[in-house]
Amino acid sequence: MTSVNPQNFTNDQVPAAVLAALTEARIAIEHISPSVDGGRFPAKGIVDQHIPVEATIFMDGHDHLAAQIVWRAVDVEQWNTTPLRAMGNDRWVAGFIPEQSGMHEFAIEAWSDRWGTYRDELEKKERAGVATALEIQEGRILVRAIADQNVSAKSSNARQVYQLARQLASANDERTKMLLLTDGVHELMSALDERRFLQRTELLRVDVERTAAGFSSWYELFPRSQTRADGTHGTFDDVIARLPAIHAMGFDVLYFPPIHPIGRTHRKGRDNQLTAAPDDPGSPYAIGSEEGGHDAVHPDLGGIDAFRRLRAAASDYDIEIALDFAVQCSPDHPWLQQHPEWFSWRPDGSIRYAENPPKKYEDIVNVDFYAEGAQPSLWVALRDVVQSWVDEGVKIFRVDNPHTKPLPFWQWLIADIRSRHPDAIFLAEAFTRPAMMYELAKIGFTQSYTYFTWRKTKEELTDYLIELSSGEPRDFFRPHFFVNTPDINPYFLQTSGRGGFQIRAALAATLSGLWGVYSGFELCEGEPVPGKEEYLHSEKYEIKPRDWNAPGNIIGLISSLNRIRKENAALQTHLGLKFLGSGNDQVLYFSKATADRSNVLLIAISLDPKQSQEAYLEVPLQLLADDLPARDIKEDLHGAAIDTAAAEKPAIQELHVEELLRGQTMIWSGAYQHWYFDPNELPLAIWRVALPQKNSAASHQEPHHEQQSDREEPLAKQLAPQEKISASETNSTLPRGEKI
Amino acid sequence: MTSVNPQNFTNDQVPAAVLAALTEARIAIEHISPSVDGGRFPAKGIVDQHIPVEATIFMDGHDHLAAQIVWRAVDVEQWNTTPLRAMGNDRWVAGFIPEQSGMHEFAIEAWSDRWGTYRDELEKKERAGVATALEIQEGRILVRAIADQNVSAKSSNARQVYQLARQLASANDERTKMLLLTDGVHELMSALDERRFLQRTELLRVDVERTAAGFSSWYELFPRSQTRADGTHGTFDDVIARLPAIHAMGFDVLYFPPIHPIGRTHRKGRDNQLTAAPDDPGSPYAIGSEEGGHDAVHPDLGGIDAFRRLRAAASDYDIEIALDFAVQCSPDHPWLQQHPEWFSWRPDGSIRYAENPPKKYEDIVNVDFYAEGAQPSLWVALRDVVQSWVDEGVKIFRVDNPHTKPLPFWQWLIADIRSRHPDAIFLAEAFTRPAMMYELAKIGFTQSYTYFTWRKTKEELTDYLIELSSGEPRDFFRPHFFVNTPDINPYFLQTSGRGGFQIRAALAATLSGLWGVYSGFELCEGEPVPGKEEYLHSEKYEIKPRDWNAPGNIIGLISSLNRIRKENAALQTHLGLKFLGSGNDQVLYFSKATADRSNVLLIAISLDPKQSQEAYLEVPLQLLADDLPARDIKEDLHGAAIDTAAAEKPAIQELHVEELLRGQTMIWSGAYQHWYFDPNELPLAIWRVALPQKNSAASHQEPHHEQQSDREEPLAKQLAPQEKISASETNSTLPRGEKI
Repeated sequence: MTSVNPQNFTNDQVPAAVLAALTEARIAIEHISPSVDGGRFPAKGIVDQHIPVEATIFMDGHDHLAAQIVWRAVDVEQWNTTPLRAMGNDRWVAGFIPEQSGMHEFAIEAWSDRWGTYRDELEKKERAGVATALEIQEGRILVRAIADQNVSAKSSNARQVYQLARQLASANDERTKMLLLTDGVHELMSALDERRFLQRTELLRVDVERTAAGFSSWYELFPRSQTRADGTHGTFDDVIARLPAIHAMGFDVLYFPPIHPIGRTHRKGRDNQLTAAPDDPGSPYAIGSEEGGHDAVHPDLGGIDAFRRLRAAASDYDIEIALDFAVQCSPDHPWLQQHPEWFSWRPDGSIRYAENPPKKYEDIVNVDFYAEGAQPSLWVALRDVVQSWVDEGVKIFRVDNPHTKPLPFWQWLIADIRSRHPDAIFLAEAFTRPAMMYELAKIGFTQSYTYFTWRKTKEELTDYLIELSSGEPRDFFRPHFFVNTPDINPYFLQTSGRGGFQIRAALAATLSGLWGVYSGFELCEGEPVPGKEEYLHSEKYEIKPRDWNAPGNIIGLISSLNRIRKENAALQTHLGLKFLGSGNDQVLYFSKATADRSNVLLIAISLDPKQSQEAYLEVPLQLLADDLPARDIKEDLHGAAIDTAAAEKPAIQELHVEELLRGQTMIWSGAYQHWYFDPNELPLAIWRVALPQKNSAASHQEPHHEQQSDREEPLAKQLAPQEKISASETNSTLPRGEKI
Repeated sequence: MTSVNPQNFTNDQVPAAVLAALTEARIAIEHISPSVDGGRFPAKGIVDQHIPVEATIFMDGHDHLAAQIVWRAVDVEQWNTTPLRAMGNDRWVAGFIPEQSGMHEFAIEAWSDRWGTYRDELEKKERAGVATALEIQEGRILVRAIADQNVSAKSSNARQVYQLARQLASANDERTKMLLLTDGVHELMSALDERRFLQRTELLRVDVERTAAGFSSWYELFPRSQTRADGTHGTFDDVIARLPAIHAMGFDVLYFPPIHPIGRTHRKGRDNQLTAAPDDPGSPYAIGSEEGGHDAVHPDLGGIDAFRRLRAAASDYDIEIALDFAVQCSPDHPWLQQHPEWFSWRPDGSIRYAENPPKKYEDIVNVDFYAEGAQPSLWVALRDVVQSWVDEGVKIFRVDNPHTKPLPFWQWLIADIRSRHPDAIFLAEAFTRPAMMYELAKIGFTQSYTYFTWRKTKEELTDYLIELSSGEPRDFFRPHFFVNTPDINPYFLQTSGRGGFQIRAALAATLSGLWGVYSGFELCEGEPVPGKEEYLHSEKYEIKPRDWNAPGNIIGLISSLNRIRKENAALQTHLGLKFLGSGNDQVLYFSKATADRSNVLLIAISLDPKQSQEAYLEVPLQLLADDLPARDIKEDLHGAAIDTAAAEKPAIQELHVEELLRGQTMIWSGAYQHWYFDPNELPLAIWRVALPQKNSAASHQEPHHEQQSDREEPLAKQLAPQEKISASETNSTLPRGEKI
C-alpha cells in the first residue's frame, strides 16, 4: 500500500479514520471452508487424504484476482502454497494433502493480479480486432515497471524480466503484442510483480489424524460370552480363539464393553432385574469392586496377563483393541472409600444413582466433576486411567455417555492424551440432541455415534446423510454407523428378517467410512423385550454363548462388504457422496467418489427387507466430470444469469462398470438402467466405474489459460536463445522458515 | 466457580491445562442470531421494532438451564435483560425492542438453574406418587444454603429467604413440599441463588436505524422532464407542481438521478449515440462541467435556490428527497484540472473511460482511489460532497455502482456521515454477483437494490425471498424492490401489458418494506430498444414529457398498495414472510405477519399477466399460533424423536378475513379457498386476518410453569402475613452503569 501523500490534501484536518480505511482490506475473503465456528475449533483431516479448501474472494471493480492457500503442519517451519481456482460467482477452490498427522494450519491469500488483468484486456481487444497500440505501449511500461521493482534482485527471473523489457523497447508492436500474450511472460510477471492489495486471512486449523480415525470396521463383543461351555465365564484366551473368524469377516477393530471388576451392591440380575441371583455376572458398566476399579481387569477374564496375550494376538491379525471408557462407578468401586470428596452425597448418606432418562442405572453412581474436592484430582485420576490403558497398547477408546460429563473435561483429557499419543482415537457414544452430538466432535472426539440406527426411510437417510456430508458437520464430525449395539435392538431389525440385516449392513458399510457390528448381528439376532428397542435376555446382564455358524447368517455379505471397503477408497469416508434418482422410494441409490475421481462407485440398496423392488437407476454420465471448474461467470446486469451459470463439461457417452459383489462387468448408456433387487438374494449392488482417459491435468490447473496453452508454442521456442525465460522461481510470500 | 482445593490431590504434578479446563465454559452458547460474520459486522434493526434473538444453549447432563439477553444502546449506560425461552432441541428464543436509533449491543448469558432442576425433580416424583422425603429434606438444605449465601444482603428478598428457611425447618414434610413447589419460591430462589457456571458470550452489535431505513416507497423522476412544454428543460419548480400527484400515489421518497452540471466532451446523444446534437441535454451521470461538479446544481434546473424551494415543498407533503451519489466525472469536471493526481492517466494523456461490462460510458471517467495523490484527499473530498448535501437537508443517497469503488471507502464514508447524522440512509445500486451485493450491506449500506427485477416465476421468487428473509442476509441486507429503473426495462414488462405492471407493483409493494417506481411505470410504459432490456428513447439522454393522466394507467392500484402498506405493519418489512400452497404454479401465495402477530395478512398474486388463473388457497389455521413455543423436547435414545418434535398448538377452526383492495369481509374455514384471479380486473388479493382472543401473555412468558401457575394460589395467600415473599428485586447480573 502506498503511503499517504499529504501534499494535495486541502482540508484543515485529516480524519484518523480515513487513514485507517486506506490501509484496510480492499479484497474480501469470506466463507472459508473448512472452518469450525469461525476457527474456534479445528477441522478434521486424515493423513494423505485431500482436504478441500474453498473461499469466497472478491474486490471492487473488474480487475483479476489471484489467490492461494498457504499451509503447513504446525511443527514444521516451512509453508506450502497451493493456488486456488475461480469456480465462478467469486467462489475459489483448491485443497491440500497433509503428509503427516498432527495439527495443521492454513490461511488464504489473495491479491490483485495486475498482469492477468492487463493480458485479459489485451486479448479481448485483439480478438475483437480493435486497435491495441495504446495497450501495447502500456504493456511495455508495465514490464518496465516490474523490471524496475526487481532491479536489485539477483534471481534469474529478475534477469529475464530485465531482458524482456529491453527487448520490448526495441520490438515492433506486432512482435511486442505476441510476446505480451504468452503464458511464459504471464508466469514471469505473476511471479515478479508486487502482490497489490494482498490480503491474508487468519490461520485456521485442521487436525490431521491417522487413517483408522476415518476408516475402520468395528466388531463388538462381550469377552465373557466367548465361552465354549454354556454358563462358564469366557476369558481373553477364548477371545483369541475368535480372532481368525473376526479377521475373516474383515473387521480391524475389536471393541469390548468394560473389562473391569463388577460391583456386587445393587448388581442387576438377568433381564435388568433389580435383584441379582448369586451367579449372575452383573452389568460390566457397574465398574469397580474390591478387586479394583477402572485400571483393573476382571479376574474371570484372565487378568491383565490374558489381556496382554490377546492384544498381541490381535495385532498379528491387524486387529486393534478398543476399550470402553465409562466414568461411572459401582457402589463398591474403591474410589468411594478412597475419595469420598469426588461424589455428591445425599442427606441420608447415599449417592444418587445414575440416570440417562428414561433409563435408570440403580447399580451405578456418578462422580461429581465440580465437587470442591474433585478439582482437579478427579480429572487427573480419570486421565491417568486412560493413560494406563494407552500404556498397555490400547489406542482406541469408545467413551460411554460423554454428554453427561463436562465438555471442558473431555477437551482437556483428549488433548492431553493426544499430546503424547497423537494416534489415540476417541469415539463418542452420545445419543442425545444434535447440538451436543456435534459439540463433542468439535472439542476433540475423533468419531461419533449417530442417529443412523433410527434412519430407515429413503427420505430420512437422504436428509441425514446430506447433513453429515454437506452441512456444517462435514468439517468436524466423523459419523460411526453402528447397525446395532447391546443397548439398541432396532425396531426395524426385530421384524425384518435376514433381508433387513443385509440392508442395514450394506447401508452402514457403504455410506460411512466407519461402521460397527455388535456380535449377534451377523447371526440376524433380533428378539426384543416386547415393545422395547432392547434385546431379550440382554448380554449386558448374562453370559451368552452363540453358535457362530448358525444357518441364515450374513457372514458372507459382511466379509464381502469389508473386502470391497478395503479395495475402494471412495468407501473409506462418508464424504464424496451424491444421491441419484432411482425412480423408487424403496431404493436408495448414490455415488461415492474420491476427491480426485480415481475411485468412483455407484451403489443401489433396496430398503425393503421383504419384497422385491425394481428401480430405474439414473446413469450419471456427468459424474466423472464434476470436478471440472464451471466456466468463468461474467458479471452481468441480469441477476438470473449471474448466479445460475451452468458448467461446461466434457461429454461422456457411456459408463463401463463392474458389479463388485457379483463380479459382472457391463456398459451403461442411455438415461436409465432397469434393475431388480431381491431381499432373498442380495438387496443391493455396488458398481465400480472404470475411468475413461481424462483430459490433461494441466488444463485443470489453469482454467483461465486453457485455450491459450493449446494453441501456442512454448515461450522458450519463440525467444532467441539468450532470452529464455523460466518461471521456476516463485515469488514465495512466506519465506522458508518464517512464521506468520 | 469454586477454587481448586489441592488438599486431595495425590499426583506429583498438577498440569496447568487442567486448571485452565476447570474454569472453562461448561455451558455452550452457539449459533447466535442475529450475528453477521461472527460479529465482524453489526446486524440491522429498526427503532421500535422487535429484534428476534436466538441461540443454541446446552450443557452436559440433565440439569435445567436459564438464559437471558443483556442489551443496551451503546451510548446508554444501563443494561436491560430479557429472559430467553427454550423452544426445544436446545434452541432458545426471545427478542428486544430498541427504543432509540444508533448502535446497540447484546450478549447472551446462561447458567445452571439449580432450583429449576430441583423443583422439576420434586414435581415429577410428586406426580408419580413416589416417596419424596429425601427430596424434601434436600429442599430444606438448598433453601438454607441460598439463605446463607445472602446472609449479609439487606434486601427484602434476602429477608424473605431467611424467613422461608426458618419456616421450612419447623414445617412438616407436606407443608414444606407445598411451599417448595410454588412459583413464588421458584422466583425467589432463581433471583437469589448464585448463577452457577454462568457463561456470557461476546457482545454482538445491532445498528438500529429510523423507520424509513426499512419502510419507504420511492418514486424516481428526471426533474428536467417535468416540463409542460415539449422540449423545454424542466426545473425544480416544475417538480413542485408534481408533488400533489406523487403524494396522492402514496410515495414518501422522491429520488432524482444526478442534478449536477453535465459535461460536453464526448456527451452522449439521444439513444446513447456517441455524438450529441447541439441541443441534446446529455446523460446526467456525466457529472461536472465548467459550471461545477458534484456540489453544484445544473443551472437549467434552477440552481440551488430552486432546489431549496423544492425540498421545503416536498417536506410539506411528508416527502423526503433522495439524491444520486455517482462518483464518476465527465471529462469536463473541474477535478480533472484541479486534481489531476486523482486520476490514472494513460500514455497518450487520456483517462480510461468508464465501463461496467457489457456497458460502456464513453462520456465518463473514473477517479483512482488508490492513486498516490488521492490518499486521502480524494476520499475526504467525496465525503465533503455528501456532507454538503446533508447540509442542504438531504438525508437519503442512492449510491451509483458502489461495487466498483473500494469497500473500505464506503465503510468509512458511511460511518463518518452517520456519526454526525445517524438518520442518513444509503441505498446501494449494485447489480453484481451475490457476495459483493451482500458485502456492501454488511459494511454499512442501509438498503440495497436486488435481483427482484429479474425474478419472475413462482420458483424464482420463492427461492429468492426465502434467501432474503430466512437466510444469512436477513440479519443485514434490506432489499429495495424497484420494479423498473432508467437502466432496466424488464423483458417481462415489455410484452406483459397492463396486467404485468399490476403484478410487478403488487409483488414489490407486498414482499418488501422498500419498493420503488421509476416514473412512466405507472403509465405502463415498456417500449424497448429491440432485443435489449432498455427503454427506447431513454430518458437518460433526452427530456421526456409525459401525459400523467394517460388512459390505462395503474395509478389507482399503486395508491391503494401504498395506503395498505401504511396501514399494515406486516408490509413494512420483507421479514415475517411464509409461503403457502396455492395449487397453481402461476399463483404466488404467502402470509406476512408482524413478530407479535398483531397484524397478519394473506396475499395471493397471479403471475400470469394475460390469462385468468384459479387457485386453491391453503387456509393456514395454525398461522396465528406459530409464535408459541414447541413443547419441551425430552432427551431420548430414539434419534428420530429427538430432532423432529411437533409443536403443540391451540386449535383454530376458522379465519375471519377482510380483503383490503375490495373491502369484502368473509370467514374462511376448511382446508382450501377456491379463488379466481383476472389480470383484466385485479390479479391479486390482500386479506387481513382478524385476530382471535389470544391466550394470556403470561403463559407465553413462562412455558415451563404454565400448568403450575394455572392451578395454584399466589404464594402471598399461602404464607402467613409475616412470610410474604416478592421477587421484585432481581439479581441483576450487570449492575447499573457498569460496562461489560
